[in-house]
Amino acid sequence: MMQAVILSQGKLYFQKEFPQPDPEPGEALIKVNLTGICATDLEMVKGYKQGFQGVLGHEFVGVVAQASEPSWQGKRVVGSINIGCGTCSICRQYGPEHCLNRRVLGILDKHGAFAEYLTLPHQNLLVVPDHVDDETAVFTEPLAAALRIREQVTLKPGGKTAVVGPGRLGMLVGQVLALDGTDVMMLGRSERSLELPQNLGLSTGLAESCAEGSFEVVVDTTGNDAGLEQALRLVQPQGLLILKSTFAGKSHLDLTKLVVAEIQVVGSRCGPFAPALELLARGAVNVKPLIDGRYHFSQAVPAFTHASQRGVRKILLHP
Amino acid sequence: MMQAVILSQGKLYFQKEFPQPDPEPGEALIKVNLTGICATDLEMVKGYKQGFQGVLGHEFVGVVAQASEPSWQGKRVVGSINIGCGTCSICRQYGPEHCLNRRVLGILDKHGAFAEYLTLPHQNLLVVPDHVDDETAVFTEPLAAALRIREQVTLKPGGKTAVVGPGRLGMLVGQVLALDGTDVMMLGRSERSLELPQNLGLSTGLAESCAEGSFEVVVDTTGNDAGLEQALRLVQPQGLLILKSTFAGKSHLDLTKLVVAEIQVVGSRCGPFAPALELLARGAVNVKPLIDGRYHFSQAVPAFTHASQRGVRKILLHP
Repeated sequence: MMQAVILSQGKLYFQKEFPQPDPEPGEALIKVNLTGICATDLEMVKGYKQGFQGVLGHEFVGVVAQASEPSWQGKRVVGSINIGCGTCSICRQYGPEHCLNRRVLGILDKHGAFAEYLTLPHQNLLVVPDHVDDETAVFTEPLAAALRIREQVTLKPGGKTAVVGPGRLGMLVGQVLALDGTDVMMLGRSERSLELPQNLGLSTGLAESCAEGSFEVVVDTTGNDAGLEQALRLVQPQGLLILKSTFAGKSHLDLTKLVVAEIQVVGSRCGPFAPALELLARGAVNVKPLIDGRYHFSQAVPAFTHASQRGVRKILLHP
Repeated sequence: MMQAVILSQGKLYFQKEFPQPDPEPGEALIKVNLTGICATDLEMVKGYKQGFQGVLGHEFVGVVAQASEPSWQGKRVVGSINIGCGTCSICRQYGPEHCLNRRVLGILDKHGAFAEYLTLPHQNLLVVPDHVDDETAVFTEPLAAALRIREQVTLKPGGKTAVVGPGRLGMLVGQVLALDGTDVMMLGRSERSLELPQNLGLSTGLAESCAEGSFEVVVDTTGNDAGLEQALRLVQPQGLLILKSTFAGKSHLDLTKLVVAEIQVVGSRCGPFAPALELLARGAVNVKPLIDGRYHFSQAVPAFTHASQRGVRKILLHP
């Protein structure tokens, strides 16, 4: 038995004695060191993905406790979260992220990371270099999600890009896009929300103060109607709006504007782990200033309350 | 004075004596031969673009009655509908379609085509070849809008494309996409709606009978919530949803699906006139079977009622 944070019938709670998962063939058993709460976790507690029952959480770093491939034994790892069937045309063409029969760690048909142990296929795992500490490595998954944008779209040199929402994901998106010389502006709704991006050397602005249509590319990382409306307002005609966020329920998007201004919208989800871990290992992305709190699994409920507050970025959970 | 069909304060009516427009510098005066009612006209009567007051209509063929450039005199013409400022960076980079100060024939700050006379800049005009009759040439504007898709996206050979809505615009989109060998299926909600596409040699299917995610590219031409929901359901993960329709008011789009399945959405509006007229001149696109009625301007109100009925495609209006 193990300690775990459970989502069941829409309620989040700590369970002292939850069955430890058994690795399936090809899977490793991983002892969890540290986990992070992301917006998807918060939305799931609010009701997104209503069917999910079990251990929540998908951002983690841990140590392989048991593996059918002995070389993995004792390795400190992070892990990608999608498990495809591996045989369908989507798996073969695009990978497991879009398999219709996929399971997703802590999100879909697979117990997650807010527990003392989790299991994942060996092929999902990546060894963390020794000099990358747990509080950095735990950002691999969200940083990979931020990097996904680079796989999906080509940002023109000199083009102006805005990231709406200087939050836990927005701060990673902004830093990643700025790395390659893109002209990025982090946009928030209060001066206070812009302090951290300024301290990290990013350009900033108040979203409402920017002129309509003043950016070729706008990334919405807010996942709320107000942020999305700002994002759409700020895209120029024939511009690109990237949705980098989880929405609970149906949100509104002004489709007339999409058509009349010929805006292109790109949904963006999970990204590549290896380059994300590489950026963290090189110290190219600053993640520790995003940490706003650390809680034991038993304090998951107050941790989630804390993470839900406006302006709060990354909250970590540990066994 | 001239006869005209007016939209004012949300009401459509025929006016026997409306002031004839005076050509501005660089404009020609055109005597209208024939016009067509499109979905945008119907939506404007329903309340889209509430600010517009004046002569409605933007699909036309006519004869130049007066021109500062004498070579245009007496020419039978069609005309593109956007008039940009010509000096802003958007006009210079993208053309007049997205100029923030644009006027649009019968849609925005410019009297339209449902009248005995209209005016347009010479540069918007295109001479209609003699062998293309008025009932064909009047389709140049909507056919150009259908061709716009070819300018915006590249359809992979062998990829499966669906066009949702075998209506007045959908039938043009389907024919245009099929021209280059794309595997196109026209999807409707009744067997009856599929008769014409079948007669024109297009593949057809009932939208609700198609499996979720079975098309790489889906074009919504319905502009209504039910059609849009089907369209989104039918796009495969990482697929492309093209919005080729005018929406009155805010429509709903499941943004969670956009993000999770990483769908790309492209808004699509006005297109290139010259290749559209070229296709009509070559007889490459079949337009006459789309005509479901012909009315005199004085019968505009019953004509609009007819055009609003389910299953009705192109209704023509003439002086």
